[in-house]
Amino acid sequence: MTTFTSDVFDVETIDLAGTTEAIVRGGRHLFDRLPAALSGVRRIGVIGWGPQGRAQALNLRDSLAGTGITVTVGLRTGSSSVADAEANGFRRADGTLGDWLDVVAASDLVLLLVSDAAQAAHHPEIFAALRPGSTLGVSHGFLAGHLANEGVDWPAGVSVIAVCPKGMGDSLRRLYRQGAEIDGAGINASFAVVADHDGHATDRALAWSVGIGSPYTFRTTLDDERRSDIVGERAILLGAVHGIVESLYQRYRIAGAAPADAYDRACATITGPVARTISRSGLRAVRDELAGADRETFDRAYAAAYRPCRDLVVEIYDEVASGTELRSVVLAGRRLARTPLAPVSGSAMWTGPRAALGRTDPFTAGVFVAAMVAQVDVLAEHGHCWSEIVNESVIQAVDSLLPYMRARDVSYMVDNCSITARLGARKWGPRFAAALEQVAYPAADGEPDRAPVAAFADHPVHDVLARLAPLRPPVDISV
Amino acid sequence: MTTFTSDVFDVETIDLAGTTEAIVRGGRHLFDRLPAALSGVRRIGVIGWGPQGRAQALNLRDSLAGTGITVTVGLRTGSSSVADAEANGFRRADGTLGDWLDVVAASDLVLLLVSDAAQAAHHPEIFAALRPGSTLGVSHGFLAGHLANEGVDWPAGVSVIAVCPKGMGDSLRRLYRQGAEIDGAGINASFAVVADHDGHATDRALAWSVGIGSPYTFRTTLDDERRSDIVGERAILLGAVHGIVESLYQRYRIAGAAPADAYDRACATITGPVARTISRSGLRAVRDELAGADRETFDRAYAAAYRPCRDLVVEIYDEVASGTELRSVVLAGRRLARTPLAPVSGSAMWTGPRAALGRTDPFTAGVFVAAMVAQVDVLAEHGHCWSEIVNESVIQAVDSLLPYMRARDVSYMVDNCSITARLGARKWGPRFAAALEQVAYPAADGEPDRAPVAAFADHPVHDVLARLAPLRPPVDISV
Repeated sequence: MTTFTSDVFDVETIDLAGTTEAIVRGGRHLFDRLPAALSGVRRIGVIGWGPQGRAQALNLRDSLAGTGITVTVGLRTGSSSVADAEANGFRRADGTLGDWLDVVAASDLVLLLVSDAAQAAHHPEIFAALRPGSTLGVSHGFLAGHLANEGVDWPAGVSVIAVCPKGMGDSLRRLYRQGAEIDGAGINASFAVVADHDGHATDRALAWSVGIGSPYTFRTTLDDERRSDIVGERAILLGAVHGIVESLYQRYRIAGAAPADAYDRACATITGPVARTISRSGLRAVRDELAGADRETFDRAYAAAYRPCRDLVVEIYDEVASGTELRSVVLAGRRLARTPLAPVSGSAMWTGPRAALGRTDPFTAGVFVAAMVAQVDVLAEHGHCWSEIVNESVIQAVDSLLPYMRARDVSYMVDNCSITARLGARKWGPRFAAALEQVAYPAADGEPDRAPVAAFADHPVHDVLARLAPLRPPVDISV
Repeated sequence: MTTFTSDVFDVETIDLAGTTEAIVRGGRHLFDRLPAALSGVRRIGVIGWGPQGRAQALNLRDSLAGTGITVTVGLRTGSSSVADAEANGFRRADGTLGDWLDVVAASDLVLLLVSDAAQAAHHPEIFAALRPGSTLGVSHGFLAGHLANEGVDWPAGVSVIAVCPKGMGDSLRRLYRQGAEIDGAGINASFAVVADHDGHATDRALAWSVGIGSPYTFRTTLDDERRSDIVGERAILLGAVHGIVESLYQRYRIAGAAPADAYDRACATITGPVARTISRSGLRAVRDELAGADRETFDRAYAAAYRPCRDLVVEIYDEVASGTELRSVVLAGRRLARTPLAPVSGSAMWTGPRAALGRTDPFTAGVFVAAMVAQVDVLAEHGHCWSEIVNESVIQAVDSLLPYMRARDVSYMVDNCSITARLGARKWGPRFAAALEQVAYPAADGEPDRAPVAAFADHPVHDVLARLAPLRPPVDISV
């Protein structure tokens, strides 16, 4: 499933820890191939103006400038996003802004980027409005899971594809703009072909991915994408890291650290030096850069945190794969009409004084890396391809998300993501905090079993990260 | 649904906050009526030897001594419970211990008290083994919810009843034994009639309830029982109170309290003076006993904690009513074969020094009472009868469960309950802790909206608790 061919783009194969994956590298020099890859597409309808809709519409319009392929934004009547779409140059007058169902009906390629709740509620009208022979695209697997839960099929007579950027919409736009100066800056993406009615679905998906600025694109299935994406945001990408920093902050405060110092050790360690080290040099480098007592502290924290974090990722995977998690998301979406999401950045660590001194607290580093590797291991056991595993567990965290928490606070990271992600982070973050406080920290204060540390030393993820590093330009996102 | 008639027991009506409920008072003087109420029942098969199976088998055998009605325990071949059942006088030799399906087939009244996971996995064999015309009894609503999720009906040709003690099995046995000296000591129960094939189902249920020692028995539906029971254990009975004490302990420690003092303020306040005051004098008395600055502190904590706790109870109710929560329980049950439940009493508050000085910390009291009233309000909005509301939200907490946390630790309370409850407490407790840390405590440290405090002053629950107080003998459970 990870191999594919293209009539337009150059497909490379890479070896990742004993497996082979086909990929397409992106870059601005490929934008002149987009019309050929989008053969038969005159109008792309981007439905929705959330973080993904906004970023993808803007990136595609820029990438397709001068090609004659029009990007039109479709919004519901009365949508509060109309003003921002208009401010960004999408206008009713020139046909680049319209009612969503009209845009669906008028487009050859429909990118369905409305909220998950809207996808759940309105997919029947949207499916009914699709033009026969057109292509429907989604950017994550929520709708696939929801249709499976409801026993509903994808619409007949259209191609169905997915391009799933491994980062939030805001990152997608920021890095694309940075890419104007550093070619290849961007967010990696996976693609999937669910239904291919004219034999061009793969090239259409690759064009979409190259057009939004993906440095490299790998193939997955929509089911693998759905599971890894929804698990990842509940675990290390958002939920777990939130639980980790909250619980460590309290631990350090109780041990006597002043508020700013506790913040530096619990949070700025992760969002600063640890994220930077992982992004540039991989996971093993975090441990290798620590010596003596610091490395011993890292090992102790890693050994104690790995198992409880892994148990939680196993639970999350189970809930997601079974469809139970998405049932909860749909229920929660209905409650949001009455009760808004609770804020996530009200605790003392976000409202008190902070420092970011660039130091690596070795205990914090051990806990964070353990949680990250736990997720890598659970995804690997479920057979996800390595590109998907490390993008959903490592690259997205350090290159796209953590810089947002560093720039402002946890809410700036979590609440720039989808409602499904925001709900999941709120649901699972506290579970990680509790598992650390009740299981991991007591174990770390005793004599934890060091087996996870030994497994870390020889972990295949180190080789995978080293192989993928040259595919990404060394750009720090400018938040 | 709350009214009913009996051919054997005296049915009283009580007025509760403008509603009328029919109830039956229990007591040892009624044991001589049990044979009449159990007309046609020669053998009661208690299937399972978990906390409820053990307690109910022992209580029923004691209550029915000399009547000629036999209580037989049914266990699976190789069950690790055989030794304890034999040590308690149930023997293969005299026909009071047998293989579970044999006992099901040989019994006129089958009390299905195996674990929820076993009920989910084995109900087809059990249903098939039931003798036509016999009566099947359950003690909580798990199986009803599971059958609904699976689209399976109750077995045809048998009566189906429920008697649901509002306390864990260990309490049920302890208070029954205390009742030998103080008549009426025991755990209240609800009953429900799902199918009545001979017109005697109500009396059979009432006999079961009186026989296990219920001071009073009220009527509900199995669906109301299922929802209130599973919500209650996730919220104030187990999950919420666990989250509350963990988060308060950290709050007090960070504010400088020594470990023993923080324990006293965060936990012993609730399990000691607050629980005792509520049990003896109701909820309003907790606030009334505080004066001046302490009452102001209570009010501030109550005002800040009520809304986030209520939002969580609403979410729990939604998950339970929809069946989603039980889907998670079934998934978790399957994981337990590989990974045991994580321990819940490893955090610093349970492993460090403790004090229990009998003082009421007013901040702790405000948070706890707010969470309790939040649950009362959500259950009331969903139309549960008042007996069910206050037994599932107040009486079970203060009279049955909290004494266990006081006697040893949170695990002694939580892990003496069903697997469904133990899973639910682990899942939801951390959510309450996070909501308090991220929403309630910051609000309490500012100027919270006092509207919840005003609503508390005139709350109908105070009248309900005052009316029900005379139905319960003033017995402190001996843990």
